[in-house]
Amino acid sequence: MTESIVDGVRYGRDGAVATVTFDKPERSNAMDVPMQARYGAALREADADPEVRAVVVTGAGRAFCPGADLGLLDGIAAAPPAAGGGHENFRDVLAAATVGVPVVAAINGGCAGLGFVIACAADVRFAAAGAKFTTAFARRGLIAEYGIAKLLPELVGQGRARDLLLSGRTFTAEQALDYGLVQEIVPPGELSLRAQAYATELATYSAPRSMAVMKQQFAREAALSLQDSAREATALMIDSFGRPELAEGLASWNERRIPKFPPHPAD
Amino acid sequence: MTESIVDGVRYGRDGAVATVTFDKPERSNAMDVPMQARYGAALREADADPEVRAVVVTGAGRAFCPGADLGLLDGIAAAPPAAGGGHENFRDVLAAATVGVPVVAAINGGCAGLGFVIACAADVRFAAAGAKFTTAFARRGLIAEYGIAKLLPELVGQGRARDLLLSGRTFTAEQALDYGLVQEIVPPGELSLRAQAYATELATYSAPRSMAVMKQQFAREAALSLQDSAREATALMIDSFGRPELAEGLASWNERRIPKFPPHPAD
Amino acid sequence: MTESIVDGVRYGRDGAVATVTFDKPERSNAMDVPMQARYGAALREADADPEVRAVVVTGAGRAFCPGADLGLLDGIAAAPPAAGGGHENFRDVLAAATVGVPVVAAINGGCAGLGFVIACAADVRFAAAGAKFTTAFARRGLIAEYGIAKLLPELVGQGRARDLLLSGRTFTAEQALDYGLVQEIVPPGELSLRAQAYATELATYSAPRSMAVMKQQFAREAALSLQDSAREATALMIDSFGRPELAEGLASWNERRIPKFPPHPAD
Repeated sequence: MTESIVDGVRYGRDGAVATVTFDKPERSNAMDVPMQARYGAALREADADPEVRAVVVTGAGRAFCPGADLGLLDGIAAAPPAAGGGHENFRDVLAAATVGVPVVAAINGGCAGLGFVIACAADVRFAAAGAKFTTAFARRGLIAEYGIAKLLPELVGQGRARDLLLSGRTFTAEQALDYGLVQEIVPPGELSLRAQAYATELATYSAPRSMAVMKQQFAREAALSLQDSAREATALMIDSFGRPELAEGLASWNERRIPKFPPHPAD
Repeated sequence: MTESIVDGVRYGRDGAVATVTFDKPERSNAMDVPMQARYGAALREADADPEVRAVVVTGAGRAFCPGADLGLLDGIAAAPPAAGGGHENFRDVLAAATVGVPVVAAINGGCAGLGFVIACAADVRFAAAGAKFTTAFARRGLIAEYGIAKLLPELVGQGRARDLLLSGRTFTAEQALDYGLVQEIVPPGELSLRAQAYATELATYSAPRSMAVMKQQFAREAALSLQDSAREATALMIDSFGRPELAEGLASWNERRIPKFPPHPAD
Repeated sequence: MTESIVDGVRYGRDGAVATVTFDKPERSNAMDVPMQARYGAALREADADPEVRAVVVTGAGRAFCPGADLGLLDGIAAAPPAAGGGHENFRDVLAAATVGVPVVAAINGGCAGLGFVIACAADVRFAAAGAKFTTAFARRGLIAEYGIAKLLPELVGQGRARDLLLSGRTFTAEQALDYGLVQEIVPPGELSLRAQAYATELATYSAPRSMAVMKQQFAREAALSLQDSAREATALMIDSFGRPELAEGLASWNERRIPKFPPHPAD
């Protein structure tokens, strides 16, 4: 287990699972620009590391991430940046959706605004019982930031997404489970263990290349007709037939053993 | 509280919440063309009124809206209109989805056909326990009218949407909640109070401009890639940084008080 | 009741409901290429038969369909086909989504891989309590085949879809109901009866033409804006006004009797 902490983001790896932890206790993990950049960089680092096959994103202390640092927003309101080029920091916020490695959010506590978007951009979400959520934006006079107007309806449907974004109301982990926003809730003391176990399952049984290709498929195929989606998938399927992952997948299945899939790091 | 009733549609405003009520007791709120047109006009009127920050749509008596007046359909079957231009009355049926002001459907009873589409075009749905729903179209030899083939899968997923549209079967408010079609069910005697309270919450805590922009984002961003969605949202976010809504959102948050957001009526 | 069995696929018709049964006991209904082709052909045959108004797809014995025959996959891994033209067998796998007749999957047992895709391409899904499901692909080193990266998020949302496809984990009928993947679970001994009853309801009360048009609408309108969806639907609605289905739909409703809709077979 190696670990570093840079700009409020802790990064560690234990076996095939990397963990990215928001860890800025003096402001309850609220984000500033360097922390956001470091979060994106940590995910890309995990994606490029052949040892890493799954990532857990979580928060230290009582909060997951309560959003952008409000002091920062105060400064922005006082001196707003010019519109136009250069504002591509959504790439860091949405990094979980663009890396090939699967990302599991372990939502240990308060999850709001920018932190809410980060959680929604992960592939799968576990939450601690009692964790509180809010989109927050409408109550601050903001809009649906960073693609959340697209992400949230795809997770919970248009009715619930509009309820949560238009109202900015606070809701609980139990409601988040009911809405389909989180896939499982866990007693707070067991969240880390459960998320690590799930990530380890991905790392152990699923081929890293399969997961990376699937994440590209999710991003591309939703916009296609079913026929075009199937046509692209067929090309990818035929390509997969000649690769070592299929041979190992079948051999391990036939021999009732744990597979030894090759790594598939990002270039 | 002001109130008018025109063509079977009652329109009133109480503070920041307007209420549009289907009120045609002699045919249980079934719709004809003038009633449909008046419904659309009432929503646009609410949207243009700087005093209005949220709208509740409901029905008087035992039904919400059981659909198009069957006598009207009889006439249409006997003398069908020519295909081609001029049939843009879906603009009224879908008015809730195009106005900037948030629309809450309070489904007090029977909700079928055209009435079902109107409910689905609202942003959020509350239903009275015991209310009955049906798409109805397939059982009348009709098709998925007014965009409901798009709206319903976005609310409840493709499996349940196909079940409900292909079968035209009747289902209950309790099932509608389970399917994610309605966001909450309420004892019949409390429906109006609950919907008004929710609309008042939107009107009190959410910036009108934020809600109007979000509704445009829902309409636009679903069809974009996540990156393009985030790029558009970033432009909107930067624009919002210079506006009074953010300053007031932050000030009210810091001062732990109710915000005083400016109105944002449609042009 | 007529019945045939060809290439491991049983086909029968009882009144207006055709039943397609995977029936290859020596390999628990695992699919090879001729079985897949026969499945597609059976659905197209049902679609072209004016007597058939709904189809049930199910499995004989303990499995629904556990996916592609693994021996076949072994052969493919040893001698992968060339990429390029000719691999359009997704047309058979997805036949339920392209025929005009409604298709109900009655998932009696193990439903995995290719069998999972077939189930997801049906319009509505019933499952026997205790049935087991898995996407399986990632654990065999494969990708999201045949459009399932598009189909599954539309059924259960992006969060659950990613969980199920990235992990390839096994889940139960009870979970499938909770996820919205199946519309109803039934005690194993009652599954066939329940699915037949539902299909008979479609065949009895819903106009065949309405259902066929709706299935095209589902496929087309999801990609359109709500306005364009409504515009297309309005043209289809006006067209439906002049047809015998509406006249009969209204007459049967007014007379409180079962409708006698004309057949609407595929050309």
